[in-house]
Amino acid sequence: MTPAAPAYRRLSVEERRSQLLDVALSLFAIRVPEDVSLDDVAEAAGVSRPLVYRYFPGGKQQLYEAALRSAAEELRQCFDEPREGPLLPRLGRALDRYLVFVRRHDAGFAALLQGGSVVETSHTTAIVDGTRRAAAEHIYAHLGVDEPGPRLRMTVRMWITAVEAASLIWLDEDRQPPADELRDWLVEQFVALLTVTAGRDPQCAELIRGALAAEL
Amino acid sequence: MTPAAPAYRRLSVEERRSQLLDVALSLFAIRVPEDVSLDDVAEAAGVSRPLVYRYFPGGKQQLYEAALRSAAEELRQCFDEPREGPLLPRLGRALDRYLVFVRRHDAGFAALLQGGSVVETSHTTAIVDGTRRAAAEHIYAHLGVDEPGPRLRMTVRMWITAVEAASLIWLDEDRQPPADELRDWLVEQFVALLTVTAGRDPQCAELIRGALAAEL
Repeated sequence: MTPAAPAYRRLSVEERRSQLLDVALSLFAIRVPEDVSLDDVAEAAGVSRPLVYRYFPGGKQQLYEAALRSAAEELRQCFDEPREGPLLPRLGRALDRYLVFVRRHDAGFAALLQGGSVVETSHTTAIVDGTRRAAAEHIYAHLGVDEPGPRLRMTVRMWITAVEAASLIWLDEDRQPPADELRDWLVEQFVALLTVTAGRDPQCAELIRGALAAEL
Repeated sequence: MTPAAPAYRRLSVEERRSQLLDVALSLFAIRVPEDVSLDDVAEAAGVSRPLVYRYFPGGKQQLYEAALRSAAEELRQCFDEPREGPLLPRLGRALDRYLVFVRRHDAGFAALLQGGSVVETSHTTAIVDGTRRAAAEHIYAHLGVDEPGPRLRMTVRMWITAVEAASLIWLDEDRQPPADELRDWLVEQFVALLTVTAGRDPQCAELIRGALAAEL
């Protein structure tokens, strides 16, 4: 089949794929995944339906997973923060970027994390879990911890989950409180959870006395 | 169709339904939902396959949702705690019962919360969300708060999500730390999160100065 109308300009295969994923992500940001068809993507991208099918022969599910992978990659870049300067502002800057990401992907972010979506599969769950693990690894690296013990790991993973919950509520409540206030609040919660764990765990106690001492 | 073999003793319709759900929940506790068939339930319950189908004509998905509803009801009962005596021990006792529940439902609890399961639907998600809301309502009631503001609500919901994350890690790590230690740790985290929020929110500040003052 030949596309009904040629695209405005010739894109390389990689550029086209990336354009289609961007368009798909912008649709997922405003509609639940179930309501985004390949036709919608074709229309929004100004390309023919067969072209979209050529890139995503597996249909909607393939498109969704590819878009999710692309978003996950973007999210991992949010975590990239130079290991320089005080620790808590580093965490704050990563959270700033994270909240911009959440705001941009809006409905798509919420649908993914809220579960119960027909496009949710063991693949999508694995992508989300991989991103959570990456976030935790970044935190250990910034804290200067090579081998996080079970208490530190549990604390960090609980905080990451709590941050996700906060993001969903934040979207639901028209992004209140303002992003910078939410960011500071989340950083304070991180410190509070680590401080509580320090009472039960030598590794966390050492972090509070050492790496974080100057900032508390 | 007539059952191949009569059950050992005659149960009322309600008793039989409840027996089948108990058996199903005990299977879901050790296997992922995808691997539990109505045949397995019939075999484990010592009843005929047609009998199980008579109770759950919608098949596996109907059985799963009914079992989940039954477990959700059981979990709500864990939250029931007399409104007497110091607040933090009340929270501790509810958490004790919750951790017994988590341990008993083990794999089924994990599969449900981890997402990506083929039996997860908007129905199952609604049941889980309803249970989370019930947990939050119990907490507001014990705190003596009629109208929780947005900060308190976000704090309580973040803590509930963090508790779920901790339960999953706990199951994954052969239930370490021991339940009573985990319970105390989670109570301390609750206080720490509320204390952090108190710095930003008059309602939480009042709770720390008032209802919780004697216990901190």
